[in-house]
Amino acid sequence: MKIWFGENQTNDVRLMVKASSVLFSGKSKYQKIDIIENPTYGKILFLDGTFQLTERDEYIYHEMLAHIPLFSISKPEEVLIIGGGDGGLARECLKHNIKKLKLVEIDEMVVELSKRYLPSLSSSFSDKRMDLLIGDGAEFISKTKEKFDVILIDSTDPVGPARALFTEEFYRNVKMALKNGGIVGSQTGSPFLFPEHIKNAYFNMKRVFKYVYVYVATVPTYPSSIWSFTFASDAEIKRRREIDIKTSYYNEKMHDCNVIPQFVIDMLKD
Amino acid sequence: MKIWFGENQTNDVRLMVKASSVLFSGKSKYQKIDIIENPTYGKILFLDGTFQLTERDEYIYHEMLAHIPLFSISKPEEVLIIGGGDGGLARECLKHNIKKLKLVEIDEMVVELSKRYLPSLSSSFSDKRMDLLIGDGAEFISKTKEKFDVILIDSTDPVGPARALFTEEFYRNVKMALKNGGIVGSQTGSPFLFPEHIKNAYFNMKRVFKYVYVYVATVPTYPSSIWSFTFASDAEIKRRREIDIKTSYYNEKMHDCNVIPQFVIDMLKD
Repeated sequence: MKIWFGENQTNDVRLMVKASSVLFSGKSKYQKIDIIENPTYGKILFLDGTFQLTERDEYIYHEMLAHIPLFSISKPEEVLIIGGGDGGLARECLKHNIKKLKLVEIDEMVVELSKRYLPSLSSSFSDKRMDLLIGDGAEFISKTKEKFDVILIDSTDPVGPARALFTEEFYRNVKMALKNGGIVGSQTGSPFLFPEHIKNAYFNMKRVFKYVYVYVATVPTYPSSIWSFTFASDAEIKRRREIDIKTSYYNEKMHDCNVIPQFVIDMLKD
Repeated sequence: MKIWFGENQTNDVRLMVKASSVLFSGKSKYQKIDIIENPTYGKILFLDGTFQLTERDEYIYHEMLAHIPLFSISKPEEVLIIGGGDGGLARECLKHNIKKLKLVEIDEMVVELSKRYLPSLSSSFSDKRMDLLIGDGAEFISKTKEKFDVILIDSTDPVGPARALFTEEFYRNVKMALKNGGIVGSQTGSPFLFPEHIKNAYFNMKRVFKYVYVYVATVPTYPSSIWSFTFASDAEIKRRREIDIKTSYYNEKMHDCNVIPQFVIDMLKD
């Protein structure tokens, strides 16, 4: 049995974790999926050999992707997640007093495995406000007549099938599905190791929306751990409500005073 | 020849890097030292098998440890570094208009190897303001009659010989060696993986100084990458000068609006 799992962050850098047990190893229609248990990080979900989440650090990524846009809307009611089939981002969104949360995940097996092995994330699927759709997110967004306050892109990196979720065309379709003043947010990868990913998303969003903001957070198990999130809207993105939920990473100061490293500021200059 | 090098961050988590060449592998009086070249991170210095620095990301750690205290002094003139034998922290300090920089490093071999293999850091040793002393930092600080504006502790983690540099007694000696309003700053490890390290340093500093501040930065090659720095003074620690130097991570907003994750705030409550 394979005991060490890990990700080749580049051709010559690897983060490796020892499995105390391997809970699942298999292939869905779309990707290779492994779920292991590790003493330091708890249960870990790998998609195509890359860290998707660990029980120990997933709150950082999910809090930062959910709460920046959601606290920037006075009264968010309808939220859409593209991807996020593990349910972790949905859990954070459901901490808000919203009416409906639609989640469009392409890979049903991710949802099923999360329900089985990752209850601290997938419990969100039993919330009455949840509306799960198995399907292609880019296709959904190009056809839907629904309108949302917030649309969040919780995808894998733009090197495979997720590439469609970072294009100007996609953001134009997203804009059509946003209410006035609505916000789109996306994970945009490591500005340290993969500056082209964030630059591509940032400048594509800039062609479509009036305001574009970048935030960073430290996600220990992602490549280089410096992780970026990019948000866009035609209304100014600023906190519009008191923070009335419990969080472990995100806080008021982080929202109101957006501190990002100088090299990230420099790479996003026109 | 060994090709993959790396650090056991915990018993079951490893960050591994492939060596395109091994420049040095040996033992000093104090520790095992390896210097390798890696395509992603450039030259990498390991001390006792832990990442000490990489050419690609060292500026993050060194900028954040140097510039928070140095820009918090109106006219810094004398600076002391305990440790830091690679010269990287000294390089950042020397960007300021100071008169003297004393560096007390216990392991002469680190200095010699840095001079040979890491010129982008060790060039600082040829600056006329540099005063290098090979010796024990804790012992030096307990005996010196000199006074400094800023004292920086650039040590390994408090699990081996560096333990003495995180005690209340050490901070009391540091205080005696500080001018009025002077600042001490120390790296205090990963609050994510090793909360006891930062808590120990923070509460020891609190017993000795009136003001204690914690900052975090993301250092990709350090365990969990969430790295903390703790600064203390009897004067309020705030920026007192315009930032007139070039940096790649540290910036004005980072200094003036100290954003740290909620879990770090929570662990430092009395």
